[in-house]
Amino acid sequence: MALDKKHTKLGVIGAGGVGSATAYAATLRGAADEIVIYDIAGDRAEAEGLDIAHGTMFAHEAQVAGSGDVEILRDADLIIVTAGARQKPGQPRLELAEANVNIFKAMLPQVMKVAPNAILMIVTNPCDVLAVVAQNITGLPTERCFASGTVLDSSRLRWLIAKKAGVSIKSVHANVVGEHGDSEFPVWSAANIGMVPLNDWTNEAGEKVFTDEVKEELAEQAMRAAYKVIEGKGSTNYAIGISATRIAEAVLKGEDAVLNVATQIRGRYGIEGEAALSLPSVVSREGVKRVLDVPMDEAEVGRLRASAEAINNSLKTLGF
Amino acid sequence: MALDKKHTKLGVIGAGGVGSATAYAATLRGAADEIVIYDIAGDRAEAEGLDIAHGTMFAHEAQVAGSGDVEILRDADLIIVTAGARQKPGQPRLELAEANVNIFKAMLPQVMKVAPNAILMIVTNPCDVLAVVAQNITGLPTERCFASGTVLDSSRLRWLIAKKAGVSIKSVHANVVGEHGDSEFPVWSAANIGMVPLNDWTNEAGEKVFTDEVKEELAEQAMRAAYKVIEGKGSTNYAIGISATRIAEAVLKGEDAVLNVATQIRGRYGIEGEAALSLPSVVSREGVKRVLDVPMDEAEVGRLRASAEAINNSLKTLGF
Amino acid sequence: MALDKKHTKLGVIGAGGVGSATAYAATLRGAADEIVIYDIAGDRAEAEGLDIAHGTMFAHEAQVAGSGDVEILRDADLIIVTAGARQKPGQPRLELAEANVNIFKAMLPQVMKVAPNAILMIVTNPCDVLAVVAQNITGLPTERCFASGTVLDSSRLRWLIAKKAGVSIKSVHANVVGEHGDSEFPVWSAANIGMVPLNDWTNEAGEKVFTDEVKEELAEQAMRAAYKVIEGKGSTNYAIGISATRIAEAVLKGEDAVLNVATQIRGRYGIEGEAALSLPSVVSREGVKRVLDVPMDEAEVGRLRASAEAINNSLKTLGF
Amino acid sequence: MALDKKHTKLGVIGAGGVGSATAYAATLRGAADEIVIYDIAGDRAEAEGLDIAHGTMFAHEAQVAGSGDVEILRDADLIIVTAGARQKPGQPRLELAEANVNIFKAMLPQVMKVAPNAILMIVTNPCDVLAVVAQNITGLPTERCFASGTVLDSSRLRWLIAKKAGVSIKSVHANVVGEHGDSEFPVWSAANIGMVPLNDWTNEAGEKVFTDEVKEELAEQAMRAAYKVIEGKGSTNYAIGISATRIAEAVLKGEDAVLNVATQIRGRYGIEGEAALSLPSVVSREGVKRVLDVPMDEAEVGRLRASAEAINNSLKTLGF
Repeated sequence: MALDKKHTKLGVIGAGGVGSATAYAATLRGAADEIVIYDIAGDRAEAEGLDIAHGTMFAHEAQVAGSGDVEILRDADLIIVTAGARQKPGQPRLELAEANVNIFKAMLPQVMKVAPNAILMIVTNPCDVLAVVAQNITGLPTERCFASGTVLDSSRLRWLIAKKAGVSIKSVHANVVGEHGDSEFPVWSAANIGMVPLNDWTNEAGEKVFTDEVKEELAEQAMRAAYKVIEGKGSTNYAIGISATRIAEAVLKGEDAVLNVATQIRGRYGIEGEAALSLPSVVSREGVKRVLDVPMDEAEVGRLRASAEAINNSLKTLGF
Repeated sequence: MALDKKHTKLGVIGAGGVGSATAYAATLRGAADEIVIYDIAGDRAEAEGLDIAHGTMFAHEAQVAGSGDVEILRDADLIIVTAGARQKPGQPRLELAEANVNIFKAMLPQVMKVAPNAILMIVTNPCDVLAVVAQNITGLPTERCFASGTVLDSSRLRWLIAKKAGVSIKSVHANVVGEHGDSEFPVWSAANIGMVPLNDWTNEAGEKVFTDEVKEELAEQAMRAAYKVIEGKGSTNYAIGISATRIAEAVLKGEDAVLNVATQIRGRYGIEGEAALSLPSVVSREGVKRVLDVPMDEAEVGRLRASAEAINNSLKTLGF
Repeated sequence: MALDKKHTKLGVIGAGGVGSATAYAATLRGAADEIVIYDIAGDRAEAEGLDIAHGTMFAHEAQVAGSGDVEILRDADLIIVTAGARQKPGQPRLELAEANVNIFKAMLPQVMKVAPNAILMIVTNPCDVLAVVAQNITGLPTERCFASGTVLDSSRLRWLIAKKAGVSIKSVHANVVGEHGDSEFPVWSAANIGMVPLNDWTNEAGEKVFTDEVKEELAEQAMRAAYKVIEGKGSTNYAIGISATRIAEAVLKGEDAVLNVATQIRGRYGIEGEAALSLPSVVSREGVKRVLDVPMDEAEVGRLRASAEAINNSLKTLGF
Repeated sequence: MALDKKHTKLGVIGAGGVGSATAYAATLRGAADEIVIYDIAGDRAEAEGLDIAHGTMFAHEAQVAGSGDVEILRDADLIIVTAGARQKPGQPRLELAEANVNIFKAMLPQVMKVAPNAILMIVTNPCDVLAVVAQNITGLPTERCFASGTVLDSSRLRWLIAKKAGVSIKSVHANVVGEHGDSEFPVWSAANIGMVPLNDWTNEAGEKVFTDEVKEELAEQAMRAAYKVIEGKGSTNYAIGISATRIAEAVLKGEDAVLNVATQIRGRYGIEGEAALSLPSVVSREGVKRVLDVPMDEAEVGRLRASAEAINNSLKTLGF
C-alpha cells in the first residue's frame, strides 16, 4: 500500500511564540498533511496543538497535535527547530548561544532517533551558528541541516521597498545575505522592481527614489525591524512563522525554489571555516540542493567575509 | 472611479493574543484587501501590524498595519472587536463584564465615527452579552452587531466527533447553540456524519459509537476545551482567530453561509428579553440576514431558554 | 533519502474535454506535485499538458506534462480514467459501453504495469459499470478501483437547493445516490440546510419551500442538468473536472472525507450481484475505506435496488 | 448599506475555449465574488456558466452564470474580452482583425451602457491592436482599456528557463515585451534566476547554460509555443485562462502588481503613434497605473520600435 506512506509530516520543536505561530501558519496554508509540536513543556505543547486543531474545521485539512513526548515527531519529513532559551535582559548574546547549544545537545540525538530521515531547519537564534552546531551533533550534511537565515530579513526589506515605490511586494526582487544578524546586508546591485534596477527607479516626477542615502536607511530599517517589533510586543513571531512555513513548503512539495537560507559555504568567495551563511539557494525535497553563485562587487564580498568571520568566531567560542 | 472603493477593509480592535491571531489568520487566508489593528496600546498594535506585514511577501496580497489612532479603522467594512480587560485570578465573571462594558462605552462611539457603515462582530467575552451592549451603545440593529458566539464551540465539537468516528472534520455536521459559555449545548438530534445520523453511526464492528454517555462526554469536552487550552498556555487565541476569520469571509464575500453566530432572537422559542443567542444563521454582506428555525425537542428548547435567561440576567445586572 | 519519494503524482488518462479540465483544475488547486496526462492521441496529450504547464507561473507549483507514451504514468499514486469513445448521435448507450470496455481491456494492463500501486478512479461513462469492468481487468479490489459516481450529481442538486433557499451551496447538505444515470435519486429524508431539515425550510414569509412537487422538480433538474449543458456546449467537462479533483485531493491528502463515490456494495440493502453504486463513502489514501450505512425508507431502498439491477444488467450484457 | 455594493464582479465576453477557461480559472481561484459570461451565442454562454456553477460546491464561493443578454454584465468591475471571429485556415491575419473590429463596434457600446465603470481587458487577438480599437470605440483612456499582452508569453519563457535551469518557475525573472506576436522579444539583459543574471548561470559542472544560442532558441520556442499547442489541440485556452485570471486579480484586489500588459506608450523610447505595446506595468484597481521605464540596450529599443511599427501599420489599415 505505497500510498499509505505518502502523506507529509511537519514537526515543530518548541511551543513558544515562534513555534506555535509556525504551526498555525502551516495549518492555515495546508503546508503538510500532519503537523505536530514537540516541547519538553508538554502541557504547553499539547495546549498549542489543541488550540490550532480546534480551528481545522475552517482551515486546510490537517492533523494537528502537540506533546511533551518526542515520539510525536516520529517519521517527520521536516523538523523546524524553534526551541531555545529566552534572552534575559542584559544577557550577553554568546551566553544565550551557549544555553541553546546545551539544549540542542540534549534534544537533537533523541529527535534523530525517532525521525532519522528528517531534514532539519534551524530557526532558533543565532540560527546560522546553531545550524552548524546541529550538523555537528547530528552528523547530518549541511544540505539537510540548514537555517532559515535571511529569508525573513529579505521579506522585510522588500516590504520597505514596496511601500516606498508604491508596488506590490511580490514585484520587488531584493535579497539580504550573510549573517542573520548585525553584519547582514542587501545585495543592492541586483535589486530590482519588475525589470527596473532599483538604482534606476523614479517616482512619477521622474526623480530617482532609491539614492544611496535611502538605500542605507532601508537596509538599516530592515535589520532593525525585529527590534522595533520586540519593543512593541516583546518578541517577534508572526513574520518568522510565515517565513518558516514558506521554506517548509519548498521542501515538502519539492519546489526547487530559490530562498535565502543558510548553509555552510566552504571555499566560496574565499571564505574559510565552518560558517553557515545565507545566500540564494535552491530548496527542495532533499533540503538545500544548491547555493547560487551570486555576482557581488568587491565591497559586497568584503561584507560577506565579515559575516563569515563573525559566525566562525561564535562557533570557535562555543567549541565547534 | 467606482473600482477605487471596491476593496475590502477589515478592522480588528485589540492587539492582544486574540486580535493579533485574527489579523494573522485573515492575512494568511486573504480575507480582505486591507487589514488593520487598533489598540489604545498603540506601540503594541503597531508592532503586531508590522510583524504580520513583514510576512506578506509569502502570504496573500494585503496591506496590514496597526495603530493606537482610531483613524486607522476609517471606512472599515467589518470590525472584529477583541479588546477587553483580562480576567484576573479569582475575579468574578460579572466584574470582568462590567470592566468590558466601560471599555466599550469609551471606545465604540469613536469607532462608529470613523467607520459608520461598518458591521461589528463582538469576540470579547462574554460575547453574546456584549453584542447586546454594543448594540445599545452604537444604535446598530442586531443583524449588523452580532457575536462570534458558538462558531468555535461547534468547531471543537466537530473535531472531537471526527476523531472518534475516524472521518474528516469537514464531513461532520453538528452545532453547539445557546450561550457561548456554560449553558451552551449541542443539538444532537440533528448531528450527522455524511448522511448518517450520529445516533446510528457504528464502528467497523457494527457497534453504536455515539451512545448517550459518549455524547454527554463529548459535549462536556467541547465546552471545557477552552479551559484545557488555558491551563496549558494561559489563554486561547489560535482557534478563535481562525473562527473569526471564517465569519469575516462570509461577510466580506457575501456568502450567505450558515454559521452559529449570536444575535437577538426576541420571541422565538418563547424567549423573552434582549438576549442574543447563538443559532444557525445566514451570514452575508449585510451581516446576519436570517436566523434559522431549527427544530428542537422539548428538552433542547428548555436548555435554550435557560441560556437566554442567563444572558438576560447578566444584561440586567449590567444595566441593559 | 526518504523524502525524495514523498511527492504526490496524479495521472489523468484521456486528453479530451474532461481529462484536460481535470488536469487544469488539479493544477489550479495544487492537488498534486506532479500532474500528467496520457492519451494514445499523443500530440493532443502533449498539447494539453503544455497548455496547462505554460500557466503554472501563476498557479500552484506543479510539474505538468502530457504524452502518448504510457511511461508518463509511471509510479502515479492515483490515476483518473476519463478516456473513452464519444457517443455518436443515435448510438445506443450499451454500444458505447462495449466500445469503452474494449478500450479498457487494451489500455489498463499496460497502465498497471507502470503504476502497479496506483488507485484508479473511473470517470468514463457509464462510470459505475466501468469501475466493475476495470476491477475485473486489473484484479484490483473495489476500494482501490472506484467510480466518481454521483459526487457531481450531488453538487448539482445542492446548487439548485442553494439557489432556491438563498444560502451558500456549502451550507446545503444533500446527496444523490445509486446509479450515476437515470435511476439515481436524492435521499431527501436526510437533506438539510444548516441544521434545518429541507422539509421544514421556510421562506421569509413562513411558507414551506421544499414541497414534494418542488423536490421532484429539483431532482429531475439535477439529473437532467448534464443534458442541458450538453445541448448548449456539446459536452460537460468543467464541473466533472472540479469534482474529480476534489475526490483526488481526498485520496492524495488522506482526508477520510465522505463523498458519494461508487464501489461494489455486495449484500447491503439486500442488493445482490457485482454492481457498484454511489453511496456516501469515506475516501482516503487507501481509496474507499468504508461505505456508510445510510438510513433509507422503504421507497428509497427500492430505488437503490432498481439502480443496482440496472447496473447488473449492463454488466451481464457486457459479459462481466 | 455600503457593504452591499462591495462585492467584486468579473465579466467575461465570449463563451469559447478562452472565455470559458478564464471563467473556470477565476472560479477555482476565487478571483471575484460574481463571475459572468456573456456571448451572443446565448445557449453556449448559459451552458458554460452552468457547467462551472455546478462545480462551485468544491471551489471558492462565487456566483457563476452565463447569458446571451448583455444585461448579465451590469455593473461589472472588470470585463475580459475574449470574443472574436475564429481564424479560418488560410485567412490572412488582417482579415481576421477586420472581422473582430466589426464585432467590437457592434458589441462594445452596448457593454459600456450596462457597465460604464468597468475596466476592459482585451484578450481577443491581435490583442494589442484591438485594445487601441476598443479605446477608440468606447472613449476609455488607455489605462482602463488594455490588453493581456505578453503576460502569457513571459510565463512561457519562464517555464522554459526554469526547466533548463532546474529551478522553480517562480524563481525565474524574465519578461517578453513588445507586440504579442511575431515581433515580441525577451529583455535578456535583465533576466535572472534568484539574483544570478541569466548570462552568469552555470550548471553543476560550472559551464554557462544560457549561451546566445540557447537564449535565441528559448525565445523562439516561447514565441512558437502557441503554434505547437494549436497543432496538437486546435487552439490554446488553458494558459491564457490562468494569465487573464492573474491580471484580473491584480485589478480586483488592487495589488499594484507589475505585469506585462499592453497599453499605449506614446513618446517613450521614441515611439510615435497610437500603438499599444507590452511593457512591465503596475496593475491595480484603476487599471494600468504606470508603465515602467525599463532600461534597454540599443538593439532592444530597435526591436521595440519595430513592434510598435507593426502595430501602427495594422491600426492604420484598420482605419484607426
